Amino acid sequence: MKKLNINELDKQLKQLSNWSLVNGKLYKEFIFTDFKNAFSFMTEVAKKADTMDHHPDWSNSYNKVGINLSTHSAGGITEIDIKFAKAIEKSASKYH
Amino acid sequence: MKKLNINELDKQLKQLSNWSLVNGKLYKEFIFTDFKNAFSFMTEVAKKADTMDHHPDWSNSYNKVGINLSTHSAGGITEIDIKFAKAIEKSASKYH
Repeated sequence: MKKLNINELDKQLKQLSNWSLVNGKLYKEFIFTDFKNAFSFMTEVAKKADTMDHHPDWSNSYNKVGINLSTHSAGGITEIDIKFAKAIEKSASKYH
Repeated sequence: MKKLNINELDKQLKQLSNWSLVNGKLYKEFIFTDFKNAFSFMTEVAKKADTMDHHPDWSNSYNKVGINLSTHSAGGITEIDIKFAKAIEKSASKYH
């Protein structure tokens, strides 16, 4: 899996709603109505992570979930992070 | 719920294995064999959080789970954080 260059990354970021590049990782904060919904979303994302064998660095505080994506072995953001971000968006969209 | 004073907190910390006081919160990092076990532990803790109506600030990176506990309404650490820390220990002990 090859690290995306800045042009490829810029193009992909334009297609992702409110994801940004923070400390070399794809980052987005999701806000839910409460903890129950936030953790239910996390449970769905965890299943996808296991299926894809690709895991987020993430944090949760009550109704907020912050997600960082990058590919450690490539030292940056790769196609798999973009694919994962899109899958995460799909899960999140159920809660809005 | 009243914030514990430093003597009460010191006494409680001595009874909790490897929890420390970090930025005014009770903190511990748990390490598991893999993501699956880390997230399974988190799922158990999330259920306890809902039951207790008391929620952690926590993060996960693959097999690591970092947990911060405090009582926002009391502006510090209270008995409920100690109770929650003990419940978390009980969940974590199943994975070792």
